[in-house]
Amino acid sequence: MSVSFPSFKPSNRSNVAPFLAMDVLSAAARLEANGRSIIHMEVGQPSAPAPKPALEAARSALEHGRLGYTEARGLAALRHRLVSHYRAAYGLDVPESRIVATTGSSAGFNLAFLSAFDPGDRIALTAPGYPAYRNIIKALGLVPVEIEVGADTRWCLTPDLLETAAKDGPVKGVLVASPANPTGTMMTPEALADLIGYCDDQGIWFISDEIYHGLVYGAEQACALSSSQNAIVINSFSKYYCMTGWRIGWMVLPEILVRPAERIAQSLYISPPELSQIAATAALDATQELETVRQGYARNRDFLLEALPGIGFDRLLPVDGAFYIYADTSGFSQDSLTFTRAMLEEAGVAATPGADFDPVHGAEFTRFSFAGSHEDMHEAVRRLKDWLR
Amino acid sequence: MSVSFPSFKPSNRSNVAPFLAMDVLSAAARLEANGRSIIHMEVGQPSAPAPKPALEAARSALEHGRLGYTEARGLAALRHRLVSHYRAAYGLDVPESRIVATTGSSAGFNLAFLSAFDPGDRIALTAPGYPAYRNIIKALGLVPVEIEVGADTRWCLTPDLLETAAKDGPVKGVLVASPANPTGTMMTPEALADLIGYCDDQGIWFISDEIYHGLVYGAEQACALSSSQNAIVINSFSKYYCMTGWRIGWMVLPEILVRPAERIAQSLYISPPELSQIAATAALDATQELETVRQGYARNRDFLLEALPGIGFDRLLPVDGAFYIYADTSGFSQDSLTFTRAMLEEAGVAATPGADFDPVHGAEFTRFSFAGSHEDMHEAVRRLKDWLR
Repeated sequence: MSVSFPSFKPSNRSNVAPFLAMDVLSAAARLEANGRSIIHMEVGQPSAPAPKPALEAARSALEHGRLGYTEARGLAALRHRLVSHYRAAYGLDVPESRIVATTGSSAGFNLAFLSAFDPGDRIALTAPGYPAYRNIIKALGLVPVEIEVGADTRWCLTPDLLETAAKDGPVKGVLVASPANPTGTMMTPEALADLIGYCDDQGIWFISDEIYHGLVYGAEQACALSSSQNAIVINSFSKYYCMTGWRIGWMVLPEILVRPAERIAQSLYISPPELSQIAATAALDATQELETVRQGYARNRDFLLEALPGIGFDRLLPVDGAFYIYADTSGFSQDSLTFTRAMLEEAGVAATPGADFDPVHGAEFTRFSFAGSHEDMHEAVRRLKDWLR
Repeated sequence: MSVSFPSFKPSNRSNVAPFLAMDVLSAAARLEANGRSIIHMEVGQPSAPAPKPALEAARSALEHGRLGYTEARGLAALRHRLVSHYRAAYGLDVPESRIVATTGSSAGFNLAFLSAFDPGDRIALTAPGYPAYRNIIKALGLVPVEIEVGADTRWCLTPDLLETAAKDGPVKGVLVASPANPTGTMMTPEALADLIGYCDDQGIWFISDEIYHGLVYGAEQACALSSSQNAIVINSFSKYYCMTGWRIGWMVLPEILVRPAERIAQSLYISPPELSQIAATAALDATQELETVRQGYARNRDFLLEALPGIGFDRLLPVDGAFYIYADTSGFSQDSLTFTRAMLEEAGVAATPGADFDPVHGAEFTRFSFAGSHEDMHEAVRRLKDWLR
């Protein structure tokens, strides 16, 4: 039996930040295992199960034979159904040949980065932003260029901000989410088109994370493909379709990236889970059921936007879409990690510290997800009110 | 609407070889869509569905509430069950804290490479070998060091071969599969222990792909953890457990790699599919059903080892395990890609050209999977006999 030698050590690139939201989830699970009641506002996942047609399709597939590898790009039925989704949702004609099913949007990002960028390439992102972007980019040898955004641009990237960032070195790609995580803010269709036009002119790959599409509350949403056929669109069944645990998403790629992404997917994923592909295909028909779920979020959002300021959370970013409220909590604590830990342990409410999303100003912010039940939102406000008193 | 500019091009690193087995699968699917009958001996997947307890657990989970994100390392119940699997299968005590559930072994390789190696690191592999190894290694900026193996070492790596490879630069990792793909050959427990001991002495990470464990026909199989706690073990529910399409596997990591791999998994995968984790946990109890499946492979193997030489395939590697026969087909054609294409179109039998597995000598070899039904094996031999006549 050998022992560990000093020469055995982890890679440098694995030294990425842990995803604090997941660590909060673990801590909350430990408390629950000890009998504590916890309101979950930390992880961005719907409390509703997958829609009924999806569950029915999965049940039926389990009855009928083997689930096997599919083509790396996914089942033709799913890709075909997504073509009509683009027509219905955006009035866009997207060729099936440019659609690739992925193992969640996580796989979509990985495949997009690997097929479009080589080590050392600089990718622009917003801060605050989804932490996995930055971590995947680093692990793949790319360089995240985090651009602080604020109220002046309504928490969005602009061509001006990109030009400034390019002074330190060429920017090869830009990754934008609208609605965004953690802020819930959206770009107007015009602002999005402007930014994409700028990227096209400069030969910058534009990656559009559209995972929160469908979850909007009055604002107008635009698909990046309305502005450019060079855009890389990444989407998922996790959020609007309530299928987080199924790990299924898709991407729409420019023609020249389809085969490179497919080649990498063959080796890196083989194929997305077949049962999830089958269920996802059916989920695209669950319009009414999913609209009811969205209305539940809208109700939670209205309640929280009314109730939170009353208990001291009075500096909130505009909540255009998604199911997050990003609150400036610097009035309570200059360190939201400590703040959210105390909130979890003392109030039994789990939320995510802003440090996950923004290395610079994150300590002043806390993200609350309102994807839970309406009762949970009321209970959370009750607990927070008592705790903060 | 913008058009593509010359500056938009795929990354260099996405220029990996396509996985020809998947392309054969696509070609076979097209023929079948046109009404042709095809015998599938190209892709390495069982024809049996997931075992009954797995299907039952999945059905039950679909009835009961939401499927969501799990911890990145996977459900505690699955990791716990794997601890007893190691005790029963190998007499090994593996702490649950070192077990990480993964989205198939594909994710296991990706996480192992990312957490143990930095760009430029050299990883030794056998040629022939599983092509995804080489492709993932390249896409991640690592350098595959392919070592040609042959009859002299029974198609296995040895310390001597590694020493020779190290003359061109330090080898940071070694990846070995036993039983191997595409050859089906195995290392003896002694040869495996020798090689692992050598790697430990040299500070070389030893990655043991044990995905074909359980599928052995008389030979003795050893787990790498019997020799060293530094070994990285990768396994999957795809082969022995008949769950390819579920995309679920696991790894056992040395302590110092657990947290790095977990951090990367949080960002790169979030978690493996929950339904698959639940089904996999139950699959570990389906011993008798899976043993019957293995006996079916054994019967196919016996039949083919008897029948193939009679129709001209008389140079076969030893088939110790897995469900592959790797045949020297240079007597028929010096280009197995052309040979297998003709075999598919003219004989209706799909097999995989050796070029997938070995850039140097692969053109002289063809891989046949015998994971299909016994009737299919008979029909394949009939068709091949007619075709070759």
